[in-house]
Amino acid sequence: MSSPTIETFPNPRPGREYEIAISCPEFTSVCPKTGLPDFGEIRITYVPDAYCIELKSLKYYIVEFRNRGIFFEHVTNQILDDLVAAVHPRRMEVVGDFAVRGGIKTVVTATYDARNA
Amino acid sequence: MSSPTIETFPNPRPGREYEIAISCPEFTSVCPKTGLPDFGEIRITYVPDAYCIELKSLKYYIVEFRNRGIFFEHVTNQILDDLVAAVHPRRMEVVGDFAVRGGIKTVVTATYDARNA
Amino acid sequence: MSSPTIETFPNPRPGREYEIAISCPEFTSVCPKTGLPDFGEIRITYVPDAYCIELKSLKYYIVEFRNRGIFFEHVTNQILDDLVAAVHPRRMEVVGDFAVRGGIKTVVTATYDARNA
Amino acid sequence: MSSPTIETFPNPRPGREYEIAISCPEFTSVCPKTGLPDFGEIRITYVPDAYCIELKSLKYYIVEFRNRGIFFEHVTNQILDDLVAAVHPRRMEVVGDFAVRGGIKTVVTATYDARNA
Amino acid sequence: MSSPTIETFPNPRPGREYEIAISCPEFTSVCPKTGLPDFGEIRITYVPDAYCIELKSLKYYIVEFRNRGIFFEHVTNQILDDLVAAVHPRRMEVVGDFAVRGGIKTVVTATYDARNA
Amino acid sequence: MSSPTIETFPNPRPGREYEIAISCPEFTSVCPKTGLPDFGEIRITYVPDAYCIELKSLKYYIVEFRNRGIFFEHVTNQILDDLVAAVHPRRMEVVGDFAVRGGIKTVVTATYDARNA
Amino acid sequence: MSSPTIETFPNPRPGREYEIAISCPEFTSVCPKTGLPDFGEIRITYVPDAYCIELKSLKYYIVEFRNRGIFFEHVTNQILDDLVAAVHPRRMEVVGDFAVRGGIKTVVTATYDARNA
Amino acid sequence: MSSPTIETFPNPRPGREYEIAISCPEFTSVCPKTGLPDFGEIRITYVPDAYCIELKSLKYYIVEFRNRGIFFEHVTNQILDDLVAAVHPRRMEVVGDFAVRGGIKTVVTATYDARNA
Amino acid sequence: MSSPTIETFPNPRPGREYEIAISCPEFTSVCPKTGLPDFGEIRITYVPDAYCIELKSLKYYIVEFRNRGIFFEHVTNQILDDLVAAVHPRRMEVVGDFAVRGGIKTVVTATYDARNA
Amino acid sequence: MSSPTIETFPNPRPGREYEIAISCPEFTSVCPKTGLPDFGEIRITYVPDAYCIELKSLKYYIVEFRNRGIFFEHVTNQILDDLVAAVHPRRMEVVGDFAVRGGIKTVVTATYDARNA
Repeated sequence: MSSPTIETFPNPRPGREYEIAISCPEFTSVCPKTGLPDFGEIRITYVPDAYCIELKSLKYYIVEFRNRGIFFEHVTNQILDDLVAAVHPRRMEVVGDFAVRGGIKTVVTATYDARNA
Repeated sequence: MSSPTIETFPNPRPGREYEIAISCPEFTSVCPKTGLPDFGEIRITYVPDAYCIELKSLKYYIVEFRNRGIFFEHVTNQILDDLVAAVHPRRMEVVGDFAVRGGIKTVVTATYDARNA
Repeated sequence: MSSPTIETFPNPRPGREYEIAISCPEFTSVCPKTGLPDFGEIRITYVPDAYCIELKSLKYYIVEFRNRGIFFEHVTNQILDDLVAAVHPRRMEVVGDFAVRGGIKTVVTATYDARNA
Repeated sequence: MSSPTIETFPNPRPGREYEIAISCPEFTSVCPKTGLPDFGEIRITYVPDAYCIELKSLKYYIVEFRNRGIFFEHVTNQILDDLVAAVHPRRMEVVGDFAVRGGIKTVVTATYDARNA
Repeated sequence: MSSPTIETFPNPRPGREYEIAISCPEFTSVCPKTGLPDFGEIRITYVPDAYCIELKSLKYYIVEFRNRGIFFEHVTNQILDDLVAAVHPRRMEVVGDFAVRGGIKTVVTATYDARNA
Repeated sequence: MSSPTIETFPNPRPGREYEIAISCPEFTSVCPKTGLPDFGEIRITYVPDAYCIELKSLKYYIVEFRNRGIFFEHVTNQILDDLVAAVHPRRMEVVGDFAVRGGIKTVVTATYDARNA
Repeated sequence: MSSPTIETFPNPRPGREYEIAISCPEFTSVCPKTGLPDFGEIRITYVPDAYCIELKSLKYYIVEFRNRGIFFEHVTNQILDDLVAAVHPRRMEVVGDFAVRGGIKTVVTATYDARNA
Repeated sequence: MSSPTIETFPNPRPGREYEIAISCPEFTSVCPKTGLPDFGEIRITYVPDAYCIELKSLKYYIVEFRNRGIFFEHVTNQILDDLVAAVHPRRMEVVGDFAVRGGIKTVVTATYDARNA
Repeated sequence: MSSPTIETFPNPRPGREYEIAISCPEFTSVCPKTGLPDFGEIRITYVPDAYCIELKSLKYYIVEFRNRGIFFEHVTNQILDDLVAAVHPRRMEVVGDFAVRGGIKTVVTATYDARNA
Repeated sequence: MSSPTIETFPNPRPGREYEIAISCPEFTSVCPKTGLPDFGEIRITYVPDAYCIELKSLKYYIVEFRNRGIFFEHVTNQILDDLVAAVHPRRMEVVGDFAVRGGIKTVVTATYDARNA
């Protein structure tokens, strides 16, 4: 019921549609072009169905990006894909809010809705 | 007409649909996994029907979580359930805005609408 | 056309639907339970019809609460009732944003719409 | 095509519906009751049709209020009327955000829509 | 598939409708009237279709305005036109947020939607 | 050992020179000229000798100014005099930070040092 | 004992060296070069000797600059001279904090000390 | 070399006089008068001599105040005494910055200097 | 008495030691290594002797850096040298506060004192 | 004249005592106890003598901590030692401002002065 790295626990109120917002301000990965580190904040908002995200496993999942070479647009979509696969939410939004590079700041926002999936 | 711990008083304008927003920045409970304290702010917004929440009893109700082991998702839904049972509002939202744990911040939002109950 | 204490003046553009927002950060009244002073900010937003609120008389009206024992929910609804009676607006919102008491902050919002009255 | 004091220039993209927001934080006029100066910020947002507001002439137009005795509600509606007459926008909003007087702050918002005119 | 100066790369998730927000706080051009420099921030938000904007080429594109004489309204519409031509987005918004000139601040917002184009 | 209205308790560490800073943001008095209320914040910083200020009695002491006609300069010096008489501190500073009147804001700061008294 | 326009009142605690800080955020004058208005905030801090500045007369004194053509450096020194002549303080500082002109902001600070005069 | 609850580790640069600042925003204790919880932030700044404070043990030490009835002045001095006994610093400052009670906020600052001890 | 590009005017109060602080947030030059633009804010604080800096000429002087290749440390010292040569101040400080490059922010501060020159 | 990793360039104004402040908000290392990443900001302020720090090499030097297990107190002192060895400044301060761990935030400040070395 969960991906290898993101653990879940049963939603304590499965009958109610409510929202959980999680922010991870300590995200870092590596730029595939320059090999230099990128920094950012990952923000996750979701309406759980049967399962919730276990926070300690989410932390370890986020840490795994530390030495991966990956672009901003890819990071954000990948996290959304992995979290949807792990907790099968009713709805989910992932925001990747990345630090300035070359005087330019980038924020990527991707969403999932089980009704459209 | 009220739960054992949350007292109420008659709504002074029962004929008007108006909103009351209450914030309790001094919430603390205990993490069931680690036994260490958690901290947060509970924000309650509601449209009263026949009764309003008496603030002093709300304070004592919030204090009762101080030594309880309970997860963030459970806290927020429990407070919504208890307040709905106590004051039978037309609508209510409870937000649990919890302090960072392991570099990750969590906000849980649960809502009630008497028209859907 | 005006209450005893709130004076009005003719709306300079009665044909246009426009909005006037007034904030009075220096509100104080007395808690009926403890006899101790309460503090807050009253914010009024309205669409005038034939009349506008004269600001000096509004100030004196607000000052009159200084020694009255009255609860937060009552204050906000009372001010809305008195202002509606005085200026017969198309629409009006009154927000009572009160200072922390016992570690808890309260904001009350009441609205009037002449189309529903 | 323009009022005596507000000059215009041709909209460089007349085929596109886009928005121009202008703020003038250095507005001052005179209170007609007391003869004392009032201060505020005028904010203008509009969708141009054939013409745009020339900013230097707008500055001189705003300066002309410096010695005029005029109430807040009148100022805001007057500026909207004059700008609409000068540039014939598709839509326009004028906000007069005035400094505290007698412990009370006032913000007046007036809008124009060519489809309703 | 791209304009001479703005390079693109294939959208890593072409099947998902998601948003990319880019801000360039280091924009400068020259006022055509006075010959003096203007400063501002360009903010771009878009939903990619087949292509994304390559950030390094965007930086060089923005730098090219440094010595051009051009008005605020024109800058914003020009950037939108060039970016739409380069990446053919589903939707795009460009905001030009310019520094105060003569005590007046200007923000121009232009949008594109492929469904209306 | 204390003035009629300000109570004290024995300093728990009389041998150490340490500082206590207290702020009372809910101060109000009456302007002797206009009869209208004044608002402000009183900030007290002191190094205790044998006694400390009991906070509940300080609150009641501050409340007593509510209906007194008194100028800003007098309020601040009076509070310093009364507190020095009550707790005989080694050093004390009282700041009266008052709300804007007639577009002008006033802050009065008075200090006491037992070595100079 | 006072200049024609700045009135004084006797210092209520002449034996104590204490500080009064006054800020006037609504200062405006006229640029002698361009004839266009300048805006700023005047901040006055002083230790009174026998007299204090009466605030209403200070307001009228500040208003008198409204139509005077005067440079920033002159304004600040002139106000210091006039206030010193009016209240004979032990020490005084006047800060003129002026709004941006041509993309450049200016703050002028002048001080007086009776011991050096 | 350390108190029962505060552990230490050897200073990695004992020959250099440098400063370590630690803030614990999640402090809570119990008011001895009312039995209700108090909240605050404890800030510790010190120049280590032979030992540094181990942070995990500091966290457990701070948690131990959770159910103790103790006044603000006592808390701050007690923490300073315990930390000085545990790490024998060259210099140390402890600030107890406590949440508003009865509309009044209190900050207590106590310092230690080995040269004066 | 002035450099070719920075004009001066006679100090209106040469007998008083007072301070003038000027900030120019719209500084841009070119990085000699990469040829890409740098951005920053130049802040100048000085005590005038016989002359003051004329602001319009200062603006043109700052604009001249727009196309010069020059490092941060050099910019700041160069501006200090040029301004000292132009106005012969009693004391002057120049701060160059430059925008982030490669995730690193730099601020350079250089001072002049005629007593040490 | 420089360490293996930190490059230098000749000070452009060796005769003047001036200050360079550099902040690196994107510092990350690994906690030696838990193996989990730590995050923080390194701030360096120095008065150069014959050499200045070359910023690109500083960036690579900071990046080298990414996979090192090292405590906060050690990081800050190590950076100070390495930078002093590389540029032989007249004076230098290094601040390590680290993100919250276990609800506790730490800032370490170490300084060097060539006159005391």
